[in-house]
Amino acid sequence: MKSLKSLLALMESFEKLPGVGGKSAERMAHAILDLTDEDVRQFAESLLAVKTQIKPCQECGMLTETDRCDICTSSRPFDTLVVVGSSKDVLAFERLEKPLYRYHILGGVLSATKGIGVKDLKIAQLEQRLKQHPFRELILATNPTLEGETTAQYLAEILKTYPITISRLGYGLPMGGHVDYADAITLGKALGGRTKVKGES
Amino acid sequence: MKSLKSLLALMESFEKLPGVGGKSAERMAHAILDLTDEDVRQFAESLLAVKTQIKPCQECGMLTETDRCDICTSSRPFDTLVVVGSSKDVLAFERLEKPLYRYHILGGVLSATKGIGVKDLKIAQLEQRLKQHPFRELILATNPTLEGETTAQYLAEILKTYPITISRLGYGLPMGGHVDYADAITLGKALGGRTKVKGES
Repeated sequence: MKSLKSLLALMESFEKLPGVGGKSAERMAHAILDLTDEDVRQFAESLLAVKTQIKPCQECGMLTETDRCDICTSSRPFDTLVVVGSSKDVLAFERLEKPLYRYHILGGVLSATKGIGVKDLKIAQLEQRLKQHPFRELILATNPTLEGETTAQYLAEILKTYPITISRLGYGLPMGGHVDYADAITLGKALGGRTKVKGES
Repeated sequence: MKSLKSLLALMESFEKLPGVGGKSAERMAHAILDLTDEDVRQFAESLLAVKTQIKPCQECGMLTETDRCDICTSSRPFDTLVVVGSSKDVLAFERLEKPLYRYHILGGVLSATKGIGVKDLKIAQLEQRLKQHPFRELILATNPTLEGETTAQYLAEILKTYPITISRLGYGLPMGGHVDYADAITLGKALGGRTKVKGES
């Protein structure tokens, strides 16, 4: 329908986003009509700003509009360095109460199927930061998936000569989860990582 | 995080859309980084174009960028007029094979809870069109909800003096549905509207 081409084009744009099918795209495009002019202008500007201004931080790899991100330029101590796969993971940590970590974003995890090897990740930069700053602890916080695990194990191996504590995020049941829905691996990890609530320590 | 303000602003924009929560908004905003420059520019332009150029067709109420929509200005016969609640419903009909209907968009349905009365719907314009053109049939295609039903019944009542066949969309089980998941009202309607496959006609 030519008389609706901007709306149909907008639906196509929404459909390019992950998890958005035809019906959702249609609903979203129509919802734009109900937003205020100011909200839509802000939406369009943010789209362009994100695409043109955001790039990886030169130090940690976190997405940023500046050369070095707010966390790298902050006064946070060089105490705990959290190694994650992507910038999204940093946002999750930053939602915790008072996080004072610094981060290192690998830009992915090792994956034979996706053809992501050691050279594709920001591992050299990680070593450089460890040499440069006296971090006390390195927390390997890649996802608890096969690929995330492999990456964490690889990092633990190549970094073992550095005078630094290396740890991995704990495994177990997620809060609000249900024991009967837990898969066997998660439940096994939760058993292995059980904490004593009474008895000799 | 100030160094990420455009990304955070974009997440907020996505969260204003229906059915988009915090996690989805985060995923969508990050996905923008993976689109091509051209795709993002097109997305932003469509947003602004939809908001500034789309308005209701003067004849049928369908969303359009022109004074009268493509369907109203088309050579489709003035034969069947499909009355729907919103423009989205028209898009559903237009996905059928070769639809040659014309449409009338009420701009909502009667609703006591939302305070939508007869005067808020484009009913006067509907009567005007019926007077102006010799439509043969009027299909009441409001949603099969309490409010859609009430609206269809109201229209059937006030339009009964016009020399026109008035019908209502059929009810029953949706294709691909399951009998054991059907609610009692739908199943009752499906029974009432059953079609004979063998036997005397």
